[in-house]
Amino acid sequence: MPSLLLDNIGSLVTNDPALGEGPLGLLRDAAVVVDGGRVSWVGPAAAAPDADARHDAEGRAVIPGFVDSHAHLVFAGDRTAEFAARMGGQAYAAGGIRTTVAATRAASDDALAANLERLVDEAARQGTTLIECKSGYGLTVDDEARALKLAHRVTDEVTYLGAHVVAPEYADDPAAYVDLVTGPMLDACAPHARWVDVFCERGAFDGDQARAILSAGMARGLTPRVHANQLGHGPGVQLAVELGAASADHCTHLTDADVDALAHGQTVATLLPGAEFSTRAVYPDARRLLDAGATVALSTDCNPGSSFTTSMPFCIAVAVRDMRMTPDEALWSATAGGAAALRRTDVGRITPGARADLAELDAPSHVHLAYRPGVPLVRTVWREGALVTAAR
Amino acid sequence: MPSLLLDNIGSLVTNDPALGEGPLGLLRDAAVVVDGGRVSWVGPAAAAPDADARHDAEGRAVIPGFVDSHAHLVFAGDRTAEFAARMGGQAYAAGGIRTTVAATRAASDDALAANLERLVDEAARQGTTLIECKSGYGLTVDDEARALKLAHRVTDEVTYLGAHVVAPEYADDPAAYVDLVTGPMLDACAPHARWVDVFCERGAFDGDQARAILSAGMARGLTPRVHANQLGHGPGVQLAVELGAASADHCTHLTDADVDALAHGQTVATLLPGAEFSTRAVYPDARRLLDAGATVALSTDCNPGSSFTTSMPFCIAVAVRDMRMTPDEALWSATAGGAAALRRTDVGRITPGARADLAELDAPSHVHLAYRPGVPLVRTVWREGALVTAAR
Ligand SMILES: [Zn+2]
Ligand SMILES: [Zn+2]
Repeated sequence: MPSLLLDNIGSLVTNDPALGEGPLGLLRDAAVVVDGGRVSWVGPAAAAPDADARHDAEGRAVIPGFVDSHAHLVFAGDRTAEFAARMGGQAYAAGGIRTTVAATRAASDDALAANLERLVDEAARQGTTLIECKSGYGLTVDDEARALKLAHRVTDEVTYLGAHVVAPEYADDPAAYVDLVTGPMLDACAPHARWVDVFCERGAFDGDQARAILSAGMARGLTPRVHANQLGHGPGVQLAVELGAASADHCTHLTDADVDALAHGQTVATLLPGAEFSTRAVYPDARRLLDAGATVALSTDCNPGSSFTTSMPFCIAVAVRDMRMTPDEALWSATAGGAAALRRTDVGRITPGARADLAELDAPSHVHLAYRPGVPLVRTVWREGALVTAAR
Repeated sequence: MPSLLLDNIGSLVTNDPALGEGPLGLLRDAAVVVDGGRVSWVGPAAAAPDADARHDAEGRAVIPGFVDSHAHLVFAGDRTAEFAARMGGQAYAAGGIRTTVAATRAASDDALAANLERLVDEAARQGTTLIECKSGYGLTVDDEARALKLAHRVTDEVTYLGAHVVAPEYADDPAAYVDLVTGPMLDACAPHARWVDVFCERGAFDGDQARAILSAGMARGLTPRVHANQLGHGPGVQLAVELGAASADHCTHLTDADVDALAHGQTVATLLPGAEFSTRAVYPDARRLLDAGATVALSTDCNPGSSFTTSMPFCIAVAVRDMRMTPDEALWSATAGGAAALRRTDVGRITPGARADLAELDAPSHVHLAYRPGVPLVRTVWREGALVTAAR
């Protein structure tokens, strides 16, 4: 691949305070050189070296590609009617997540892969250059392993979430389902995943079950992450920090002790405003976490039930409006924060040596992602130095 | 222009209950024929006549193009820092709307036209096929007339809003500014506008001033519309209904008497959720208006100070989430509702004889505009039968 000079960048977010102003390491009138899929040079446009090709940003903003560290993309089926009923304030008899489990099990590999690839492409056009992907709609040994193998086609950040809910076949014997998830299902899934996750919530898995599931995964070399404290208070966040999980996700209902644990542990608080948006729930309090010193990531939680968005710009706008993040904090959380939640240092930043994942905006500043809500501002995207999407 | 068959439409919103199911007149497996810039045929795909060309919608949804009946697009200048400060909870010393007035007056015609056209194009790519455009950042005779003439380059729905705020030169003598707005400025502006509008609000124009301004405009053949009850209770809504205004816009703070007036008058209640989103204000209660029987429109209020979005899909998603509209109601309000607010019967619907303004979605249903917030779902747009934008 020829080297590429991105020139005439009006405002560049590097996420390296050593390279520019503030926590975003902001540079004005900047340039970036990309070579071999990596960033090879960052600095003032006036000092930029030559390269094989040149892209003129014409004064626009360039930011690191978004790192969406929480998504459920291997599924089939349609839950449009359920959404419309919920938004209309009507009861809806359908089975929620079980609807998706049944449809996913019944779907062919090709159908699942096509849906998955469509969503990853859709996310990429909106600036997402790395996306995590969970299983969790199979809930059998074969269906969970299949989901992970399919997810591996689109990302290295693959998460085993056999413990999404208790499989319908085990409704009367959840302990036996935990045995399956920590036994034969883990055997089949561990080779295909980096992460182990559990939905630790009333109605899903309690603290003891979650600990057993995460510990079993860790014993097989997986690193834990936890769906925690979404629907109410519970042990999820504290368990995540205690086990050294990379991330506690949702964090909507937190005690002072939970906030304190996140502020002092090694676990990122990943906030998912799409879920609260699409279920008319109260938003997590990002300000409280940030003021306490916690590391905050923003992700989509893309799934067909509670947050069917792939749009990181949308999550940024809502986080600023409804979670009291500043536009700078939201941008950081959607890029460097997501990278931290995946324990990656090669993405979420535009620094020499980093993966060349960049998004050019149809705007002079990253602030416009919140200032211009809903407007598709992502104009050009490069992933590992390759053009993913270009302005039409 | 050759005739065009839009075939294989999975779900077609006609907005004509005589043509299909419910208030949206929904048709499944439908087709539309466009000829001479108009819709010439609507019905089941199986019965579609031939046409010169064919577009296969492959089961996607097709909706009427959005009618954005409230936008302020003739302006110059940047208020990004003001937005970021507001969202960060900081005071900001800059002059709000006066910043934009100063920049707009200082800008060349070409610069204003370029910004205007960029925003209209951006809106069109998101499905907006008719947009209203107001003056109001000139506030001198020449600058207001200039804004209207520029607006006419992009739309027939041009609104004289000399009474946006009292011009800074008249800060000490608002009565003299009302004389200007109803006298020489109106003389210069009336030939270039269809509508007269006033910002009837504490800090802008009171009920008596608003009545004088609207009445003067009406005497010159303009039809009234009113910025009413955005920031607090006031006389705007009742005045709008009393004068037979086409629309009362914002309607955020309403008494029971205001709701009753809207329910029984000929004035559409135009709700602008982008403004509440971007100023962290309380949303208007669409449910209350709809339940009372008022006609509700949704629009962007696109402007650089309080709602810098051109995205009707975003407004729909927020209206469903935060204003308690159903996805069907929100779609209707963003299309047929906007048409009603502009007293147009030729747009906002897909019926024989209507203007061929259509948007094809990357989704099987219009519900996805709320179900998939932030995702750019508008795939293909036709305005008066001509292709505006196509999937990349
Ligand atoms: Zn999740
Ligand atoms: Zn307005």
